[in-house]
Amino acid sequence: MKKLGVGIVGVGEMGRRHAENIRRLVPEARLVAVADAAADRGRQVAADLEIENSYPSLEEMLARKDIDAVVIATPDKFHANAIAAAAGAGKDILCEKPLATSRGDAQAALRAVARAGVRLQIGFMRRFDPAYMAAMKRIEAGDIGEPVLFKSLGRDKDIPPIEAYQSNVNGMLFYNNTIHDFDLARWLMGDEVTEVQAYTTVSIRPQLAMYGDVVASSVNLKFAGGAIGNVESNVQAIYGYDVRSEIVGSKGAIFVGSVEKVPTAFLSASGSSHILADHFLTRFADAYLAEVRDFVDNMLHDRPPRVSGREGMKALEIAIAAEDSHLQGGAPRRVRDQEVELLGAAGQSVN
Amino acid sequence: MKKLGVGIVGVGEMGRRHAENIRRLVPEARLVAVADAAADRGRQVAADLEIENSYPSLEEMLARKDIDAVVIATPDKFHANAIAAAAGAGKDILCEKPLATSRGDAQAALRAVARAGVRLQIGFMRRFDPAYMAAMKRIEAGDIGEPVLFKSLGRDKDIPPIEAYQSNVNGMLFYNNTIHDFDLARWLMGDEVTEVQAYTTVSIRPQLAMYGDVVASSVNLKFAGGAIGNVESNVQAIYGYDVRSEIVGSKGAIFVGSVEKVPTAFLSASGSSHILADHFLTRFADAYLAEVRDFVDNMLHDRPPRVSGREGMKALEIAIAAEDSHLQGGAPRRVRDQEVELLGAAGQSVN
Amino acid sequence: MKKLGVGIVGVGEMGRRHAENIRRLVPEARLVAVADAAADRGRQVAADLEIENSYPSLEEMLARKDIDAVVIATPDKFHANAIAAAAGAGKDILCEKPLATSRGDAQAALRAVARAGVRLQIGFMRRFDPAYMAAMKRIEAGDIGEPVLFKSLGRDKDIPPIEAYQSNVNGMLFYNNTIHDFDLARWLMGDEVTEVQAYTTVSIRPQLAMYGDVVASSVNLKFAGGAIGNVESNVQAIYGYDVRSEIVGSKGAIFVGSVEKVPTAFLSASGSSHILADHFLTRFADAYLAEVRDFVDNMLHDRPPRVSGREGMKALEIAIAAEDSHLQGGAPRRVRDQEVELLGAAGQSVN
Amino acid sequence: MKKLGVGIVGVGEMGRRHAENIRRLVPEARLVAVADAAADRGRQVAADLEIENSYPSLEEMLARKDIDAVVIATPDKFHANAIAAAAGAGKDILCEKPLATSRGDAQAALRAVARAGVRLQIGFMRRFDPAYMAAMKRIEAGDIGEPVLFKSLGRDKDIPPIEAYQSNVNGMLFYNNTIHDFDLARWLMGDEVTEVQAYTTVSIRPQLAMYGDVVASSVNLKFAGGAIGNVESNVQAIYGYDVRSEIVGSKGAIFVGSVEKVPTAFLSASGSSHILADHFLTRFADAYLAEVRDFVDNMLHDRPPRVSGREGMKALEIAIAAEDSHLQGGAPRRVRDQEVELLGAAGQSVN
Repeated sequence: MKKLGVGIVGVGEMGRRHAENIRRLVPEARLVAVADAAADRGRQVAADLEIENSYPSLEEMLARKDIDAVVIATPDKFHANAIAAAAGAGKDILCEKPLATSRGDAQAALRAVARAGVRLQIGFMRRFDPAYMAAMKRIEAGDIGEPVLFKSLGRDKDIPPIEAYQSNVNGMLFYNNTIHDFDLARWLMGDEVTEVQAYTTVSIRPQLAMYGDVVASSVNLKFAGGAIGNVESNVQAIYGYDVRSEIVGSKGAIFVGSVEKVPTAFLSASGSSHILADHFLTRFADAYLAEVRDFVDNMLHDRPPRVSGREGMKALEIAIAAEDSHLQGGAPRRVRDQEVELLGAAGQSVN
Repeated sequence: MKKLGVGIVGVGEMGRRHAENIRRLVPEARLVAVADAAADRGRQVAADLEIENSYPSLEEMLARKDIDAVVIATPDKFHANAIAAAAGAGKDILCEKPLATSRGDAQAALRAVARAGVRLQIGFMRRFDPAYMAAMKRIEAGDIGEPVLFKSLGRDKDIPPIEAYQSNVNGMLFYNNTIHDFDLARWLMGDEVTEVQAYTTVSIRPQLAMYGDVVASSVNLKFAGGAIGNVESNVQAIYGYDVRSEIVGSKGAIFVGSVEKVPTAFLSASGSSHILADHFLTRFADAYLAEVRDFVDNMLHDRPPRVSGREGMKALEIAIAAEDSHLQGGAPRRVRDQEVELLGAAGQSVN
Repeated sequence: MKKLGVGIVGVGEMGRRHAENIRRLVPEARLVAVADAAADRGRQVAADLEIENSYPSLEEMLARKDIDAVVIATPDKFHANAIAAAAGAGKDILCEKPLATSRGDAQAALRAVARAGVRLQIGFMRRFDPAYMAAMKRIEAGDIGEPVLFKSLGRDKDIPPIEAYQSNVNGMLFYNNTIHDFDLARWLMGDEVTEVQAYTTVSIRPQLAMYGDVVASSVNLKFAGGAIGNVESNVQAIYGYDVRSEIVGSKGAIFVGSVEKVPTAFLSASGSSHILADHFLTRFADAYLAEVRDFVDNMLHDRPPRVSGREGMKALEIAIAAEDSHLQGGAPRRVRDQEVELLGAAGQSVN
Repeated sequence: MKKLGVGIVGVGEMGRRHAENIRRLVPEARLVAVADAAADRGRQVAADLEIENSYPSLEEMLARKDIDAVVIATPDKFHANAIAAAAGAGKDILCEKPLATSRGDAQAALRAVARAGVRLQIGFMRRFDPAYMAAMKRIEAGDIGEPVLFKSLGRDKDIPPIEAYQSNVNGMLFYNNTIHDFDLARWLMGDEVTEVQAYTTVSIRPQLAMYGDVVASSVNLKFAGGAIGNVESNVQAIYGYDVRSEIVGSKGAIFVGSVEKVPTAFLSASGSSHILADHFLTRFADAYLAEVRDFVDNMLHDRPPRVSGREGMKALEIAIAAEDSHLQGGAPRRVRDQEVELLGAAGQSVN
């Protein structure tokens, strides 16, 4: 059977994981090449994974005819440009979240995708996590009745080094972290978020304010259908990596996640203690693999991707509204319901 | 040793529990009488607990010289008047939350207390719960560093019957339920809430809007010291009675509560299942008892109560601001930091 | 309504709890008197509970006509004699486990009960624990199919002081602790234990061997119907009080208990920690109260007790066989299926 | 760097997992060939993993010079012969547990290994599980003091089809399942098991008796140092795959495992429910990979394997004693402490 030729741009922690998954665990795909502006890193990953081609730029990699699809795992701010370039070269695309870090960039990217008639998937991998999928199945079956409350939180163990903020290549908290929860809110509630209100804090890291970023946030949500919700993010929870969601409905509730533990407890006269999980690549290892498998499968069978560019745009608009609320000191902000007809194939969700 | 003579006004579910605790489990107190506008109910409780006196009105009960202190467990709207009456009769007071359902009522009650020179405790019994006390001990020891995020939720299993709304004698959700979390927010964070923003929903019970009430709410909080938070309430969670709080700090976090279960699991080919707890009198049985014991002990030893009228006023102001935000469709509202010097002894916290 | 007049003999930790429960929380009973060979302790408990009569001997207390029933909470070795004395005085009896510490004593006690035509309940309070009752309900409903495996463990936090062993008034581990699990084995499996095999250890407390006792034991069980099981006991688990049981059947399983925690977790960079429960009077507070309520209710309504002397005898025979296996270095021992017809009313179970 | 050339014999469920791990996730090894008596299955696995060579017999595969080491994952009864053959061909060996299904076979295999001077590792993969490794680290650090009690259980969800019993190629329960716990007992307690006593049951599958096998077992253990223990196995627990161990010591305890769940809970008025894990390849996925990585690493660096043939022999002797106790109706049996000097390099543990 024909295999899907894949190139990956950006092989930092996230891109390297995609590369490993595709190289080793997705027999239907062939990892043709990697590209990274840090040429040494690209060469190293290529060597480690025993593939022949690495490039110092996306453009060089896109010139290859044996690449059918591109995985984009660059810093956030380069997503939109990379999408446009890949689309221009006629490649299908799996792009890490967020779609872009501004509305203008996102629109430009989606227009390029539409123009080229290629397909675009956004990397909301939680939709492929077994626990979240089990939750969605229950909700779709009507088991919790009408959803009333959506709660979600995402806490990182360790704040990124200050250099990551100085380099200014990733979106602030709402674009980089909370956007996962914004997407879950839409997906699990089967509804659109129409308004948000955000409080944020830099209390324990005041210097983040200089970079337009925050340590933690609490975002209240209003849904079109009357439900409400709240999403919390925290980049410095210290105790571990902690992602949980709760959906409470008229007939029942679904909880996803718990504070993940290594299944070893030590018990003594002073109580019991557990080791906590500390990294998203561990928690969501299965999800990342299932995501890329699903992408490859859909591309090979000429089906639309499961999480379209439109989904990416919708989540981005919530992040934009949340940032705006934050900048306004907590005033509620409507989520812009922009026209997305322009998106064409790229914006077509199969859901 | 002299015992504290106690009278209880309002012996519905809550007042009856106080009566049982005082009658059976607080040897330092003597339950002298109960009063209830529903005279039959008062008589029945007196008979069940084998005490001699029941009255159809608070006023008649207050005439007794052998009553040193009064526990108020009437519907919310009568709290302030009952406080004023008891204070006027020179009795010390343990009043169920909320202090009152309006600012004017609360101020009048506190003035009466101050004038009479009696002592007033507000029934925030969670402060006496072993789990919350263990949390507070950790926080005060500095174990979590500087508090950054406060999260709390309170979900009831079954919504009260519609008659309870029609009778209009209790405060709406923020005064009746959420006020517990507002008090916890101040107590556990060691900080004041300065601003709130509230979204609410009646989606699955639209008729509640007629009574100015809601099914569920999500209230974002801003603290004076820079921290933020969120409090969720839901009167119809269906699956059980669920109260949990999380405080995340710069060095660690404290979680209080979990979804309480009867410790019996049934496991079969279709998974495992648990029976969930369903009532606050079960969850907080120890707390209610510890609360009234502490109150009796402080009264007998001429010490101020642990949770003063000032605490009641502070939590009430948060509820008022939350209701205001709700009425304004989600606009953030400052919490009024009113002068409380007038409160005198009644407003003196031992904390 | 007539109340059941109750006297309690032995008001150490256990007897005092029974006294408190009956005095405060069982309105259908009247606590008439307590008796304790330590006269001071008896007087103190009487004073604390505000009852008028305390006696330095059981015999004196039994002379009272207004005592209908006696609760026996003396050390184990005095149970049988106390039963015989109370029966001789025509009183109904609730006796703490074990029924006796030898077969001969047990038979004598049961004969006295039968002769006197009084009723005897043995204090297997776990049968009244909500979690164990929920388990039994599931089993009786057939939800786990045919029971195949019975597992149970009981671990105490702190070993009794060495004086408790020197005084030699309590049965060794199997009679004092494990007997609870032996009773659960029969009750939950709906079957008889026919053979046991025991390994024991004194490794960390070799001096216990001098008193014929052990620190921990693992007893394998064979049931008449073909099922098997294991019961573990440990008097020095250090980390807490821990009681758990599992019954695995052909269609499902039931788990009872978990390592009980105060619902407060502390989470930091080194993991999460919980406070554990440490005492049986906390874990089984509800069970002890339900037990004595059920006893009082059955006595007042002339019904047989729920856990008869026969049940006490059956569990005792398992303990005897387990001790025998232990003394034989681990040889399996048949459980004696003695004739219990002699027991009459005392041996009549309502189950 | 030179890679370790590996051949795998037996590519059923277990061998296929080893093949996938080595092919995809162990860059230091090269999967050269697979062999399987079911030639079609061998060809299919080779095709799926895109390797060139598959053989219908071990002997043919052993002829390859580019194979340095062999992984044996045939049915239990062929382990010993396969070890001898691989040793005869001068290959290092990773053999699935058990080493053999009889003492004679095991000795013959170890002699062949010693004679050939090759290295042999036994597949006790739990020693490579992160949770068990965390436990061992705590024990070795002295955190639980002196170990007193060892408890372990292993329950499979679904019994193998009756054909698996009829084919008679695997050892009975003690050799195939419980042997994992026997190895854990020795490893975690740092002590030798000197005596065992076993009760077994076929109650819900009487036909298993025809094949010398059982549904469930409870094996009591005595350790040389005075500690005791119990190990339970059950091949038909229905509710899921469940592996747990507890080690209780003089200063604390270690628990490994819990009933593994997909982290999704559904909560309704009838309680909460969880989906349970159902397969050992899921629970121990990390362990199998870590095991084979460690093996490859040690072989490449000329180090002895971490779990030697001697470890396999020791666990086997416990299984033999347990089966003997079972055949004797539950009589305790000494574990034979046979001379293992003959084993040479093969029996040399690095522990």
